[in-house]
Formats: sequence, structure tokens, C-alpha cells
Amino acid sequence: MDLYAAIRGRRSVRRFASASIEPAVLERIIDAATWAPSGGNAQTWRFVIVTEQARIAKLKTVSPGLIGEPGAVVAVCQDLAAARAKGSALGEVLLAPCDAAMAAQNLLLAAYAEGLGTCTVASFTHRAVARLLKLPETVEPILLVSVGVPDETPKAPARKTEGIVHWEVYGG
Amino acid sequence: MDLYAAIRGRRSVRRFASASIEPAVLERIIDAATWAPSGGNAQTWRFVIVTEQARIAKLKTVSPGLIGEPGAVVAVCQDLAAARAKGSALGEVLLAPCDAAMAAQNLLLAAYAEGLGTCTVASFTHRAVARLLKLPETVEPILLVSVGVPDETPKAPARKTEGIVHWEVYGG
Repeated sequence: MDLYAAIRGRRSVRRFASASIEPAVLERIIDAATWAPSGGNAQTWRFVIVTEQARIAKLKTVSPGLIGEPGAVVAVCQDLAAARAKGSALGEVLLAPCDAAMAAQNLLLAAYAEGLGTCTVASFTHRAVARLLKLPETVEPILLVSVGVPDETPKAPARKTEGIVHWEVYGG
Repeated sequence: MDLYAAIRGRRSVRRFASASIEPAVLERIIDAATWAPSGGNAQTWRFVIVTEQARIAKLKTVSPGLIGEPGAVVAVCQDLAAARAKGSALGEVLLAPCDAAMAAQNLLLAAYAEGLGTCTVASFTHRAVARLLKLPETVEPILLVSVGVPDETPKAPARKTEGIVHWEVYGG
């Protein structure tokens, strides 16, 4: 799929057909995620791919934004101890979420190219997700991404244009 | 350009040929950035495109990670007041940097497809950058992205594989 077509065509999908996803496809989209850049090449991201429907159901109870019946949920996590060791406070506080998000964006685009729908979720109870996924103490879930066969074709929300782009200085 | 080719082929570039970049190309890559998702469709990102070499030189003095002679620097910013109004504390603290980073990732991929090199920079003095770009008080620079005609072809850093991907639970 053409890059610009993927960038412009990807939508957040919240209704999924009940269908499982080939593990090889999930591996490809996670591989795409790991080709994102990371601050100081830290690569301190960690991915937990959940396909067990019982576990997804439990995740949903602690994640208000996680809706529909996705075939998989990918928890994009960061080892904050590793991030701090690599990039000190900046690594833990800023690079960790930014690196996770850049990896997630690759994942969303790759999933779209694979014919899958995704939705990124930031609203969830971190401790509960950590417990359900048996995360070590230093590993923090940053974003959840639901992945599934889309059962809707959402329209693109209007892009805001006013005051978004500036030249040379703000307001320019 | 094929999506996977862009995802896997993009490198961080820090040596640039001295060449200016067509404004239309810069507009295209910023447009790509704005097609990223945002938490609650907030779209509170702000982009300042700097092409004046004198201003880029000043940015470099306060941004240790900003090296080489890029034709442009894009400051990916967030209006934190708008982010908080839209998404409360989560919006300001987590969605703002994550949304900015996802937009930046689109920008990096689009620039690569346009034949340009980029490097993402998180290490800079925020107040000094804000002053140089005349940012309003509520607008925070999250990441700087240098953009230029590449004068090097960096090899891909090895991808870490151990302990990165887990199935169902961490360690699984």
C-alpha cells in the first residue's frame, strides 16, 4: 500500500467483525512498530499481544476507551527503568511515551495496510492492566491498541486547519 | 512509496546537503502529520516550520541534538491549555506528547517518501526554543524534527529482539 494512502486512509475503528487474526500478521505489524526511531536508539519499548478473548474481556473492564470486540489488543509498554538508565529523567518522562507513540503509529499504519482496523486507547487503569498482563514492576503500559477486522468504515474527522501551521515563528 | 518500504527504510539523518526544500513539500509532510490520530480527536498539535538559516542556527545553540545543516526544522508543539481543556490531566500529561509523537512519525515517513532525511530531537532547552519561535505561553515544543536533503545513508541500527515481544502476558 502507498504510504500517503495509508496515512490518509487510516481511521480509528471501534466495531470489529468477530474474526481472529493470523499470528504472522500480528508479528508483521509489531515488527513495523519496532522500526520507529527511539531516543538514543534506546528501544526500550515492550509489546504484549493479547488474543485470548477472556483476557481481552478483562482488559475492557479496566479500559473505558477499549470498545468493540477486537481480535487482539496490543499493549505498547515501556521499561521505564531501562529508559531512565539510557536517557535519565528525559528518557523516562518524555522519550518513553514519545517512542511508544511513534512505534504505535507505525503499527496503526501497517495494520491498515494489512486490512485491519485499529484504535489507540490511553484511558485505562494502569495498575490493573499491568496486573492482567503480568508486567514486571518497571514496565509501564503506555497505550493499548485494539486490532481487528473492521466492521465499519468511519469517515475522517475534519482536520483542523486554523492556527495549526506556522512559518518561521508562531503566528507567521 | 510502499508503506513497509518507508517504515523499514527511514533512517535518522544528521548530515544534510546544503539545499533548500520546496515549501510545497514541507506543506505535504506537515499535512501527513495532521492525519495522525489524536486522543479524543483533540488535534491540539501546532507546527512551526523554520527555514530561515539564521533562526535554525539559533535553535541549534539551544538544542544539543540538533546537528548538521538541515534545510528546515519543524517544531512539533502542543497547546497544553487546549489539551487540558479537551482531555483534562491525561490530555496534558500523556495525550499531548503521544499525539505529537504520532504526528511526527507520519512526518518522518512522508519526508522519507519525498526523498528527504529527518532526525527527531527531544533534547533542547524548552524555554529558549519557545522564545525563539515566539510561542504563546500555553504552547509547548515537544519535539524538533530536522528536515533536509540527506548527505549520508546511515545503516539501520540493529533491532533489539530479546524480551521485546510477548504473547498474552509478559514473558509469554
